[in-house]
Amino acid sequence: MVTMDTYPIQIGGVTRHVPLHEPFPGVRIPLVDFLGDIEFVRAVMGELVPKMPDDADLIVTVETSSIPLAHELAAARDLNYIVVRKRRRPYMIDPIIQEVESLTLGAGEVLWLDRRYTERILNKNVVLVMDVVASGGTMRALERVVHRAGGKVAARMAGFHQGNGAEGILTAGELPLL
Amino acid sequence: MVTMDTYPIQIGGVTRHVPLHEPFPGVRIPLVDFLGDIEFVRAVMGELVPKMPDDADLIVTVETSSIPLAHELAAARDLNYIVVRKRRRPYMIDPIIQEVESLTLGAGEVLWLDRRYTERILNKNVVLVMDVVASGGTMRALERVVHRAGGKVAARMAGFHQGNGAEGILTAGELPLL
Repeated sequence: MVTMDTYPIQIGGVTRHVPLHEPFPGVRIPLVDFLGDIEFVRAVMGELVPKMPDDADLIVTVETSSIPLAHELAAARDLNYIVVRKRRRPYMIDPIIQEVESLTLGAGEVLWLDRRYTERILNKNVVLVMDVVASGGTMRALERVVHRAGGKVAARMAGFHQGNGAEGILTAGELPLL
Repeated sequence: MVTMDTYPIQIGGVTRHVPLHEPFPGVRIPLVDFLGDIEFVRAVMGELVPKMPDDADLIVTVETSSIPLAHELAAARDLNYIVVRKRRRPYMIDPIIQEVESLTLGAGEVLWLDRRYTERILNKNVVLVMDVVASGGTMRALERVVHRAGGKVAARMAGFHQGNGAEGILTAGELPLL
């Protein structure tokens, strides 16, 4: 019989027993799922909304699993959001291309932002939003994209933080390394 | 001076002047953007909700740009949704792997669904949701994923249809080839 350990995540009155993933031998992390679980995403959103700066103009996030949280945060504050991509899309013209610095990955991930979005970011107070931050490398790359597009980073927010790389990131909760 | 032609999209009282993309010489298509535009996504959702079957249990979509529409449709009907991936994720165990048949692409795209989601699909009435359907190849692959997971397809829905490949797909509007 196959059994799967789970870990309980509680946030704003909502509990999820999530599966554990073992990215390296001996390290297990709870696998939080923001895609498809509206009740859970809204609970996380409810914790983060009061922490958002009053002068936020725009949310910038990165595909894929952070999209529902960015969507709900934007809806709650009547803002728009921009999704930075992890693959070049065929319609992109002169995109901003930003490598993610990573200590663990050999081949670095690359972020892509179509140039037509930069005018929406220019001189705006931007809130960066991700679902889970671990090393913080993707968040730093996202910040660099916003700076290169002429925007100001008003806050860096994540649903959860995991590990030691999230100084200055506002979160709704912590995830353990088990 | 660079000028960019735009095309007006009207849906449920919301108008967007979207840029045109030229995927092949001589063919231009309006570039509808569901990512980041909540007002537009909700307008499309408002057109589609009345067309959803009453006995729908679950929404299944595919990343990335269809996620906000699936999210809003699911929220409107108090359903959950599942996002089929276009890249294998590290945590996937024994995933369903489904190639997308395409007439135009040499290297076929591949859809991935982690096995742990299949129990949520088994015997359920599933509504497939995409943002834009052109040839219909991705929609057919999505349907195959649901069948392989033991689900029934109750409806196939898309924000917009473009071209001639969308028989039997319920949409909110048409996009022209220009």
